[in-house]
Amino acid sequence: MTLLESLNWRYATKRMSGAKVSEDKIDHLLEAIRLSASGFGLQPYQVFVIENPELKSKIQPIAYGQPQIVESSHLLVFAAWNEVTEEKINYFIETVSKQRNVPVEALGDYKNAIAGSMLRLPKEAQANWAARQVYLAMGTALAAAAELRVDTTPMEGFVPAQLDELLGLAEKGLHSVLMLAVGERNAEADYMTGAAKVRYSKEELFIKL
Amino acid sequence: MTLLESLNWRYATKRMSGAKVSEDKIDHLLEAIRLSASGFGLQPYQVFVIENPELKSKIQPIAYGQPQIVESSHLLVFAAWNEVTEEKINYFIETVSKQRNVPVEALGDYKNAIAGSMLRLPKEAQANWAARQVYLAMGTALAAAAELRVDTTPMEGFVPAQLDELLGLAEKGLHSVLMLAVGERNAEADYMTGAAKVRYSKEELFIKL
Repeated sequence: MTLLESLNWRYATKRMSGAKVSEDKIDHLLEAIRLSASGFGLQPYQVFVIENPELKSKIQPIAYGQPQIVESSHLLVFAAWNEVTEEKINYFIETVSKQRNVPVEALGDYKNAIAGSMLRLPKEAQANWAARQVYLAMGTALAAAAELRVDTTPMEGFVPAQLDELLGLAEKGLHSVLMLAVGERNAEADYMTGAAKVRYSKEELFIKL
Repeated sequence: MTLLESLNWRYATKRMSGAKVSEDKIDHLLEAIRLSASGFGLQPYQVFVIENPELKSKIQPIAYGQPQIVESSHLLVFAAWNEVTEEKINYFIETVSKQRNVPVEALGDYKNAIAGSMLRLPKEAQANWAARQVYLAMGTALAAAAELRVDTTPMEGFVPAQLDELLGLAEKGLHSVLMLAVGERNAEADYMTGAAKVRYSKEELFIKL
């Protein structure tokens, strides 16, 4: 099965069955998210993996009552860094040093490139940059879940401040950006199952220069 | 080959050979981008596909001289909408109507959901929302190219205002967000070929609740 077939298979599932997705598949999905590209490789986010039904029930009203939240197997909350600090850059460079077995001192140019680009930005722009990397990771996650034939609903529709409060994200220096319900479609209840995928044509989307 | 293998294979290529990528593979990559998910399905962007060497040479200094721009086979410029207008929403709803063979009148709730969420936002927030969808499409693009074993370099490092000027994007209601160099790695010249992929551990990235 190619990625194109998988992308054609997937859709933003509106109703889920409540069935559990196997731990193997969830691990596979999380590994794809972990391997996602990000600016400078900085991965400026963390992902909360929620199975607890009570917690899902508390999140549902924050997301306008969307049923997939409680009908999902796992609910992922993607939370971006509120700021890119020198401390975080140093920690990243130490990670590069360890994983590539290169002394930190040899990574000065890399560190300076990140610091020079990021630290001069206002905090709000840093947070926005981090949030954009979350969207990139979501693109990876949707492709990975589709390949596994696991249904998903990517969600922008929730009140971030309320979710941040519920999950205590401010204390962690994070803010919620996207959620992803992961589960199994309830084809009977979901009016979107089998609906034609709507996309602009090649001619509308691409401009060859 | 699974997506995980593909994600492990890929890296942000620093030097390319100049070899052309086949039109078949480019078409496949563009189709994956076309199938990418986006908020409301609105696909609030266009993608410029650049093969012309002279144009690439003009873009290179705008992107701090990065060699992949002229060494690529194809250079993609992802440009997001500057605003989400009622006109654009209407055009989208007409597209849904045609592709699903549903009367426009039956899509009122869908249209109102998009309009209610987007039109009240300041223009700057609309542009930022559109730019975030570009990052999601980039996630799809990187996965698709890796599956094809086509090398890529996703790029945030350029001066958007200068690229917008060069490509006349303001007149089109667009602004450049990301570029993607597509080509073949030059393993001899690229110091990153074969370097270990650096990623935070599962324990660092995921929090199970």
